[in-house]
Amino acid sequence: MESRTDKERLLGHRGAVVWFTGLSGSGKSTLAIALERELSARGILCRILDGDNVRCGINAGLGFSEADRRENIRRVAEVCRLFVDTGVVVLACFVSPTRELRRMAREIVGTEDFCEVYVATPLGECERRDVKGLYAKARRGEIRDFTGISAPFEVPERPELRIDTSGRSVGACTEQLLQHLLPQITHNRELSSEADRIGNIRTEK
Amino acid sequence: MESRTDKERLLGHRGAVVWFTGLSGSGKSTLAIALERELSARGILCRILDGDNVRCGINAGLGFSEADRRENIRRVAEVCRLFVDTGVVVLACFVSPTRELRRMAREIVGTEDFCEVYVATPLGECERRDVKGLYAKARRGEIRDFTGISAPFEVPERPELRIDTSGRSVGACTEQLLQHLLPQITHNRELSSEADRIGNIRTEK
Repeated sequence: MESRTDKERLLGHRGAVVWFTGLSGSGKSTLAIALERELSARGILCRILDGDNVRCGINAGLGFSEADRRENIRRVAEVCRLFVDTGVVVLACFVSPTRELRRMAREIVGTEDFCEVYVATPLGECERRDVKGLYAKARRGEIRDFTGISAPFEVPERPELRIDTSGRSVGACTEQLLQHLLPQITHNRELSSEADRIGNIRTEK
Repeated sequence: MESRTDKERLLGHRGAVVWFTGLSGSGKSTLAIALERELSARGILCRILDGDNVRCGINAGLGFSEADRRENIRRVAEVCRLFVDTGVVVLACFVSPTRELRRMAREIVGTEDFCEVYVATPLGECERRDVKGLYAKARRGEIRDFTGISAPFEVPERPELRIDTSGRSVGACTEQLLQHLLPQITHNRELSSEADRIGNIRTEK
């Protein structure tokens, strides 16, 4: 079977998972879409995963109990792993409110391929935006266990990146993301030897 | 969000699912590995999915009851869909013994992207090979509901391709696969307009 390294050589860049965590309305999807546009323009193959394209797909049938939320994130992380092994850069947008959930995702993906981005927009700003009207519903008690209102969001302790979108343009935030990511995934003259090194490390495990 | 068409332009080929169905030992994985090598050599990004890389991953926890087997194939097909939407050619190797299971997979993927390959190696030949020793176990009654021995395999009625590997080289079978597939997925001068047409049809839905 062709190895991950073979696929990364074909694509000319490394696979990785950018895991956006943060409150509803914090800007996770907006940033992922903007980042995808920039990466694609540089010839980098991306895949956005979010509630919209997995809830009705691989996660159809899962509800919002604690066990189901955990299984939701577990399956997403497993799908991320398959994409990374194909050399793709996955942009995953999930509230993933607890350290335990994010730790699990990181473990499944493999920490060397996992870039946790905490979209740290303050609750007040997220609630003010309330794009989907969910905060209003949660305040009226129509949604149980809504992260930030009636369920906790555990702030990431050591995310690879922390982005507060309030008062900043999408472009500025995307620039911050690119500066962090591009050196990690972009093809350059060292990709082959770098990929070989990684391949060897994996084989040695 | 970047569309499938954007990703196919970047890759220079179309996404598709090649769904290998057939008895255990019929040669599904062997053909998939050989096909992947040939496609990769032509710059086509592939992803093999089989029991080995999904049973412990997205399908961990699923057993071999009828409901679990169905859920197994359902999730695999949903993952296939995500890859196809990223422009990747998926080579999926699953016994998938019933018409109902394969119909479900085709429906989830979308029939226009689904190429069903029936690996029609006769039972006697599969049992003679018995690479994993499963037929011997099944004959001794140590495996229940083993396809071909104690559970039926429903022969596909209208597969896109039918390959009997007995008495033929892997190379000859792979050639048959390539001749069928390459025209469908290979980039050529018409890819852009073709991809646009497909994009438009999808949008119109």
